[in-house]
Amino acid sequence: MPLVRISLLEGRPKSAIEKISNVVHQAMVETISVPPLDRFQVVTEHPRGYLAYDPNYLDIRRTDEVVFIQITLNQGRSLELKKALYARIADLLHREVGLRKEDVLINLIEVPKENWSFGNGVAQYAT
Amino acid sequence: MPLVRISLLEGRPKSAIEKISNVVHQAMVETISVPPLDRFQVVTEHPRGYLAYDPNYLDIRRTDEVVFIQITLNQGRSLELKKALYARIADLLHREVGLRKEDVLINLIEVPKENWSFGNGVAQYAT
Amino acid sequence: MPLVRISLLEGRPKSAIEKISNVVHQAMVETISVPPLDRFQVVTEHPRGYLAYDPNYLDIRRTDEVVFIQITLNQGRSLELKKALYARIADLLHREVGLRKEDVLINLIEVPKENWSFGNGVAQYAT
Repeated sequence: MPLVRISLLEGRPKSAIEKISNVVHQAMVETISVPPLDRFQVVTEHPRGYLAYDPNYLDIRRTDEVVFIQITLNQGRSLELKKALYARIADLLHREVGLRKEDVLINLIEVPKENWSFGNGVAQYAT
Repeated sequence: MPLVRISLLEGRPKSAIEKISNVVHQAMVETISVPPLDRFQVVTEHPRGYLAYDPNYLDIRRTDEVVFIQITLNQGRSLELKKALYARIADLLHREVGLRKEDVLINLIEVPKENWSFGNGVAQYAT
Repeated sequence: MPLVRISLLEGRPKSAIEKISNVVHQAMVETISVPPLDRFQVVTEHPRGYLAYDPNYLDIRRTDEVVFIQITLNQGRSLELKKALYARIADLLHREVGLRKEDVLINLIEVPKENWSFGNGVAQYAT
């Protein structure tokens, strides 16, 4: 059910894009019970000057390796689960892709279950 | 009032993009009372590897023709209206553009009316 | 905390993109208490036919200079603050960038504070 938009500066090899994409999904599966097959993502690369980030906000040092991860998902995860998700995404991006944890920005947009159709024009999650 | 983001794999002719764009708007007009002139959409094409979808989630067979449609719109549509919208989008994409209904993924993000300005720096929908 | 997506037709010089980006941020700082360093934006350019807008909806005359500004931010701003934000964005885009105010479309998506991680895998705004 999540629809994930990953935005980053252009210039990474495609293999790095794939790893980032894989790892973000893995973290969602491990921490917030996203089904393993429930993977829908869009990754976009942007030229310098078209992706703006502050290199210092909240005393976190960011670099051009910064990754914005915006996840639209079903509402209702607890704060503890959200914290686990953030920690796991940053941890896996660091360990598996070599990203600095400071460069991982995450935002969640929550929607009710009836706001999804996964194909066939049907609201599969609506009761 | 809707802002529609349509994401798909690159390689379609521009005429197909236009049809997809037209038909998604038509379905919103027909089912959830979107005014015919209230059309604001962004269509983006993505290289293989940058748009990830599961080819089998919920036992729905998806192909590289898959289309993600994310619609930000005013809150308050009933479940029945949402279901009608999903069905009509998939139906028109199938009939008018030749897409498989399995390849149509839809997500709604609902916002209050005061969250829009349609020009001139004014909140036209706020009361 | 806001994540800002600015979508426009391709063809502007990079200097214009930078001004638009700067001015949208400035308006948020001035009207809705966004910290000056809290700047995270993605600007995307789209070919004709891939960004659709109605040139007349609500009797507002729009041109190919149209700019879509979608801001994900913390919930809780009053209607007055939202109105001030819309007015200031349109005003600054007009005065500093030469845009017609009619060409400025704005949408807000509000989320709770716990829906952000600004780095390090931590939910910095959660209490």
